[in-house]
Amino acid sequence: MERINNTIKNISGVDPVIINKTQARLDNLTKPLGSLGRLEELAKRICGITGKVNPSLVNKVIFTLAADHGVTDEGVSAYPKEVTAQMVYNFVAGGAGINVLAKHVGARVVVVDIGVSADLKPDPKLRVEKINYGTKNMAKGPAMTRDEAIKAIHAGIDLFEEELRRGIDIVGTGEMGIGNTTAASAITASFTGSPVEKITGRGAGLDDPGLKNKIEVIKKSLLLNKPDPADPIDVLSKVGGFEIGGLAGIILAAASHKTPVVIDGFISGAAALVAFKIEPKVKDYMIAAHKSQEGGHKIILEHIGLRPLLDLDLRLGEGTGGALGIGLADAAVKILTQMATFKSANVSEKNI
Amino acid sequence: MERINNTIKNISGVDPVIINKTQARLDNLTKPLGSLGRLEELAKRICGITGKVNPSLVNKVIFTLAADHGVTDEGVSAYPKEVTAQMVYNFVAGGAGINVLAKHVGARVVVVDIGVSADLKPDPKLRVEKINYGTKNMAKGPAMTRDEAIKAIHAGIDLFEEELRRGIDIVGTGEMGIGNTTAASAITASFTGSPVEKITGRGAGLDDPGLKNKIEVIKKSLLLNKPDPADPIDVLSKVGGFEIGGLAGIILAAASHKTPVVIDGFISGAAALVAFKIEPKVKDYMIAAHKSQEGGHKIILEHIGLRPLLDLDLRLGEGTGGALGIGLADAAVKILTQMATFKSANVSEKNI
Repeated sequence: MERINNTIKNISGVDPVIINKTQARLDNLTKPLGSLGRLEELAKRICGITGKVNPSLVNKVIFTLAADHGVTDEGVSAYPKEVTAQMVYNFVAGGAGINVLAKHVGARVVVVDIGVSADLKPDPKLRVEKINYGTKNMAKGPAMTRDEAIKAIHAGIDLFEEELRRGIDIVGTGEMGIGNTTAASAITASFTGSPVEKITGRGAGLDDPGLKNKIEVIKKSLLLNKPDPADPIDVLSKVGGFEIGGLAGIILAAASHKTPVVIDGFISGAAALVAFKIEPKVKDYMIAAHKSQEGGHKIILEHIGLRPLLDLDLRLGEGTGGALGIGLADAAVKILTQMATFKSANVSEKNI
Repeated sequence: MERINNTIKNISGVDPVIINKTQARLDNLTKPLGSLGRLEELAKRICGITGKVNPSLVNKVIFTLAADHGVTDEGVSAYPKEVTAQMVYNFVAGGAGINVLAKHVGARVVVVDIGVSADLKPDPKLRVEKINYGTKNMAKGPAMTRDEAIKAIHAGIDLFEEELRRGIDIVGTGEMGIGNTTAASAITASFTGSPVEKITGRGAGLDDPGLKNKIEVIKKSLLLNKPDPADPIDVLSKVGGFEIGGLAGIILAAASHKTPVVIDGFISGAAALVAFKIEPKVKDYMIAAHKSQEGGHKIILEHIGLRPLLDLDLRLGEGTGGALGIGLADAAVKILTQMATFKSANVSEKNI
């Protein structure tokens, strides 16, 4: 817990002076005032976060954390549990959606086993930070111990700080874990108090009876474990997942190192919620990439107060929406740093 | 007109067999069915348009057409008319928003003077296809002759077909012209019948009295010229612009050459409306990049039946939103062609 507290201590507010300077600079570029809308907002935010007037997003990193969930015993997913490990091999081989989209935006993917229920074949492209072989079934008791929850967050902080040595200018969150929309839904219900029915979606593709069962399993788990919303570690340990804890740690670490962090979809959103409940100041460091098709995601974004950049009906996870969001952030920074000014281009300003 | 008719004759429907094949292929990729949402839709559409099962968007081209508008005499813009020519030099020098965003997505920009009111310095990077030195003031009579309207569309077809020899896999529409949101608003009112007040926005940044004046000028122009919505050339000639006609030609030519065309914002939308009214089949070839902050743009998109990809409060034009849309189209095609299948990656499929 000390490591978490030390990380939080280093999170300051974003720099308002630099944000104002950036606004003035944007207003001098050859375009009508504010005409690049949310790209301008994004550029300002990135300057405020990094404290740099000329940020450059060279090192783009997406962390894709994989873990298993004991609650899959309750039949909450359309896919078998084995898919988590299989997909990790796919990430390492470069064949998954996140590999394609990360390459598209020039980001590197850091694949991490933070709690897959099998021992995976060693691979130089795979980081192993296994907290345990999957969580326990939260419908029968806490998903993990309090100590494991803290360890998962620590692992995220460590992952970020180690990767920082290779350079990180912007980071995206990603995950893989059969059953993890169930955990994300339970976390969202705990923190926001929204009804489970409104939060819970079909995940990777449940049918109607499957969705009904998933809702009941979540309700049962909340009733049994009574996670305390005033204690984020308690919520994470009782109904969370190792990848969610790890991502919360990455988000906290990113904020403490003045790095913009692009939040992917629903599960990443649940991790963002955990981080936000631990330290509300992280909000200013978060960029919401997109609005997922999972209903609970919208509830999370509204609760934190984030407006998503994209609305493409994505629900894959892995960090795929985050990758596209990183692409937009890159575009925003290039607008700021590469466009001509009215003066340099000899263009007349507004009449009035 | 014959050239337009010949172009239209070559526009066929998109290929449903290839779209079905693409759907089957997408369903075999290592992701839950449909989980990449609109990216999957986009990939299917591009396959259907091009007739290729393995499209590759190597040659990305954005046409940025510049022209002046006589209606600026009525004080409808916050910027002086001279800015059109000044911005053309900025495009050629590479300092404008479109240059930065086109480079970001790997597109080349074709800058065209199709009706700027000044003689511009010759430059190898500038195409001159001037129909006239700006349109006439539509508040006093037709903006151009019927012959000029046809010539503008022809110029667009020629531009596309010449550039096609250098290779075009996807095309984006862009424009620059002080006063052209006034023309776009008048075109939108003519074709859709929506009230001018609802369609008309602040353009590059009008204040309240300026907006009121702009609405009155548009109403007056429509009353005076009586454009016939059943005759798209009539609408274009009476209340249009040369860049709008040129873009309509580019859109028709793109469809006739089985090339996806990414529509930028409001003015490009007005051009799309002209092309759509000339030949409704072009609809299937259009990809709406984003929803502009100009209210009339939403009306156009709904009228044609297009759902925009991005909602970033952009209102710059030039093709900037189109560039970002091209980036998403590229991502969609890469998903289709670069992801592993369940079989190749040894990943289990859905339980049910």
